[in-house]
Amino acid sequence: MLSEYLSIWDKLTSEDQKILQNSSSKRHLRKGDVVHKGESDCVGLLVVCNGQLRAYINSDDGREVTIYRLFERDICLLSASCMMVSIQFEVTIEAEKDSDIYVIPSPIYQKMMENSAPLANFTIQLISTRFTDVMWFVEQIMWKSFDKRLSAFLIEECKLEKSNVLLTTHEKIALHLGTAREVVTRMLKYFQDEGFVVLSRGSIEIVDSNGLAAIYE
Amino acid sequence: MLSEYLSIWDKLTSEDQKILQNSSSKRHLRKGDVVHKGESDCVGLLVVCNGQLRAYINSDDGREVTIYRLFERDICLLSASCMMVSIQFEVTIEAEKDSDIYVIPSPIYQKMMENSAPLANFTIQLISTRFTDVMWFVEQIMWKSFDKRLSAFLIEECKLEKSNVLLTTHEKIALHLGTAREVVTRMLKYFQDEGFVVLSRGSIEIVDSNGLAAIYE
Repeated sequence: MLSEYLSIWDKLTSEDQKILQNSSSKRHLRKGDVVHKGESDCVGLLVVCNGQLRAYINSDDGREVTIYRLFERDICLLSASCMMVSIQFEVTIEAEKDSDIYVIPSPIYQKMMENSAPLANFTIQLISTRFTDVMWFVEQIMWKSFDKRLSAFLIEECKLEKSNVLLTTHEKIALHLGTAREVVTRMLKYFQDEGFVVLSRGSIEIVDSNGLAAIYE
Repeated sequence: MLSEYLSIWDKLTSEDQKILQNSSSKRHLRKGDVVHKGESDCVGLLVVCNGQLRAYINSDDGREVTIYRLFERDICLLSASCMMVSIQFEVTIEAEKDSDIYVIPSPIYQKMMENSAPLANFTIQLISTRFTDVMWFVEQIMWKSFDKRLSAFLIEECKLEKSNVLLTTHEKIALHLGTAREVVTRMLKYFQDEGFVVLSRGSIEIVDSNGLAAIYE
C-alpha cells in the first residue's frame, strides 16, 4: 500500500488519500532501466518500495556523474520537476538494482499540493533532502581530493552490496564519479600497491577496509 | 513595503499579511557584513530590496566558494534553514555590496507556512530556485575547465558592475571560485597575453570581451 511509504498520509483528507491511492501505479524496474530523463519527461513522484535508483547529470560530451541515490522508502521528486517551474535543470533517474516503485502522476500530485498545506510542507522536506544530498556532493568535489572520493565510494559500495568484492568496472566507477576511466585505474592501482584492494578483471576486492577508510578520514 | 517583494502577497489572508508586515524588519547591510553563518544561525527569510548578497560554503581548512548570489527582489531561504529539518548543510550569507533587506523571522514564517498552502507552495518555488542555482554551479565545476569558469565570471562581473574595469584582487576571485590564488593569477596572465584583459594592481580591465566570451562558449 502506498500509505505505508508516505509519512504524511494521516494528515491528508480521506478524499485526497483515495485519489492518491487510485491514481498511483506500481512499477517493476530492471537494473539499468531509465525511468526519467531530462526536462521533457515528467513521469511523476517515484516512491521506492525496494531496490536502488540513482540520479545523475550528463555533460554535452557524454560524461556523467551521480548526484544522489535513492533507497527503500525514499521519494524522488525531480522526476516530477515539471510541476515546479523553478526547477530548471535536468537529471536522469536510473534503476541501479531491480526495484519496485510506486509512481504518483505529476498533475494529480501538483493539484493536491496547491490546496493542501500538509502536502506542500511534505514536499518542502522532500526537496530539502535532495538539496542536502547535492550539497554533500558539492562539498565532496570541491574539497576532497580524488583518492578520498574513490575510497569513500568503495567503502559505501561494500556496505550497499554487503560484500567486500565489488563486481564493477573502472569505466562504471568513472561514470559514477564524473571522471575519466584512466584516473580511476591509476588510483585503484595505487590502492592495490598500498595493499588496500586486489584487482581482477571485472571485480575489486577490498582487503583492508580500515586502510582505505583512513584515506578518507 | 514588504508586500511589493512577495509575489504571493495577494493570496495570503489579510491576517497573515498583517502578521508578516508587523513582524518583519528592515535592515541595512554594509558591504562585507555577514548576515547568516552556519546552522546555528537562523535569522529568517531575507528579502533583498537592493544591493547584492552572496551565499558561500567553507572547507575545514578555510577555503570558500560562492554557490549563488542574490539580487534585488530575490529571497533567501537558507538563512531560515532551521525551519526545514531536512536542510542539513551550512552556508554563509554575506553582503557583497551595501544592501537593504527585509528580515522575516523564521518562527513566524514557519508557523504560517504550516497552515497556508499558498505560502508553502511559494516556499517550494524559492527552494527550487536556489536548488537550480546550485545545480548550475555543479555543472560548471564538473564540466567546465577553469579558463571557462574564469572567463564567465569576469563577463558576469562586468555586467553586474556595469563597467569594464573590475576593482578586485586575485585572492577574492580565488575565494569566489573555490581555487588557489596562484591558479587565478596564472590564468589571468594567460588572458592578458591573449589580449583579453589588462592587469594592474587591484584592478582588471577587460579590453576584449568578445575574445573572453569566446573561451566560454
